[in-house]
Amino acid sequence: MTSDSTTTISELRQIIADFVAERDWSQFHSPKNVSMALAIEAAELMEHFQWLSTEGSRKLANDPQKLADVGEELADVIGYSFALANELGIDVSSAIRAKMVKNVAKYPADQFRGRYSREDDGNSVHSP
Amino acid sequence: MTSDSTTTISELRQIIADFVAERDWSQFHSPKNVSMALAIEAAELMEHFQWLSTEGSRKLANDPQKLADVGEELADVIGYSFALANELGIDVSSAIRAKMVKNVAKYPADQFRGRYSREDDGNSVHSP
Amino acid sequence: MTSDSTTTISELRQIIADFVAERDWSQFHSPKNVSMALAIEAAELMEHFQWLSTEGSRKLANDPQKLADVGEELADVIGYSFALANELGIDVSSAIRAKMVKNVAKYPADQFRGRYSREDDGNSVHSP
Amino acid sequence: MTSDSTTTISELRQIIADFVAERDWSQFHSPKNVSMALAIEAAELMEHFQWLSTEGSRKLANDPQKLADVGEELADVIGYSFALANELGIDVSSAIRAKMVKNVAKYPADQFRGRYSREDDGNSVHSP
Repeated sequence: MTSDSTTTISELRQIIADFVAERDWSQFHSPKNVSMALAIEAAELMEHFQWLSTEGSRKLANDPQKLADVGEELADVIGYSFALANELGIDVSSAIRAKMVKNVAKYPADQFRGRYSREDDGNSVHSP
Repeated sequence: MTSDSTTTISELRQIIADFVAERDWSQFHSPKNVSMALAIEAAELMEHFQWLSTEGSRKLANDPQKLADVGEELADVIGYSFALANELGIDVSSAIRAKMVKNVAKYPADQFRGRYSREDDGNSVHSP
Repeated sequence: MTSDSTTTISELRQIIADFVAERDWSQFHSPKNVSMALAIEAAELMEHFQWLSTEGSRKLANDPQKLADVGEELADVIGYSFALANELGIDVSSAIRAKMVKNVAKYPADQFRGRYSREDDGNSVHSP
Repeated sequence: MTSDSTTTISELRQIIADFVAERDWSQFHSPKNVSMALAIEAAELMEHFQWLSTEGSRKLANDPQKLADVGEELADVIGYSFALANELGIDVSSAIRAKMVKNVAKYPADQFRGRYSREDDGNSVHSP
């Protein structure tokens, strides 16, 4: 039983909205600025995996401290994502459901099983 | 009444997990690779605001087509965020709540009201 | 008279190559890893302009300390760009000249003077 | 004999400066905007390596078409780097030389030979 199974998107969006409102920060939260903040946090998240091999990066889950650090960066990324949704009035659940319908059509399961592209012959990815 | 108010984080995470499982894509979804995909989608989101002024970027909300395009990129960003949480076993709600407690302590509302940093004298931001 | 007017691309590439060779770091410098490092440094550079207005960001040139900080991040970005060129054997000057020929054809000066896109009506950019 | 061995930084900077001037685009080239453009191009460059393994990404050098595509993205990254240097009046050669002096002091060759961090025990990187 995790917190995610009982927490709605709106509840988390509200936490972000309250934080911004209490500091009168909406003036800084133009969509342009928030999109920059989001990209910067995504880079900070990526930094944790920068010098690891692709397979080595899976082992990070076994290190509680590193996992907590990554969780914090991920929280920043999702937090700014919700901040942007708040500023622009985007319903996140609808946007994700609509995009996944497109993705299902673009990547039919029977044609893309085990392949990330039509050109993928499996060599480049499975090599170390 | 939006979909976000009744959709849990787990429900959206499950949509992503099913999509990945049906294509046997977990083999490509090492945390390193997913963090790269996330950063790339964050850049594509940012691209919509690249040449706009900070204030001009707020008007994007008035253009339904551009808003839909931005919503789609935001869905990609959050989708990969959930994919990373799935691979690493991170509870997103707990991570966000914990980080926001830290943020509240780091940016006391009474000291940061209307200021994004202690050095901010208001000039740089408020100028056009 | 600046140093740039007498320094060739190869001279700077060699400084980077020597640094990497002296530490036996080529093993970490797979193109994938270097492209991540480059994107991370680009985000750190962007961080200096994150909360500034578009016009306010021009004033940064008047603050010697901030300009030095930005110069250091820019050095990291170009340094990793040269590191990637070194690993892949790309001639930077040829690549830039070839791309600029394409850009000149894509953006004819007479059609794009003062406009960053064919759709640009000048409103979004010139607004504060 | 490559073009890089006879081309100065200033020559390439001038190509970029002329392109911007002929279109009267300096008005869009605030440092904030250019830093965003640079980060977006860095992400497009990274996209070529996104699903490859770290070692697999080295093989891209053997594919002339992919190498040309990567060279074009790298040209965009360095082009925007020079555009930013042009807007802010930064001497690129001096900035890189100064930063590399710092890097040499921060990463003494004898302590970092074959290790990318003091904590690196070699396992995570050398694993596939």
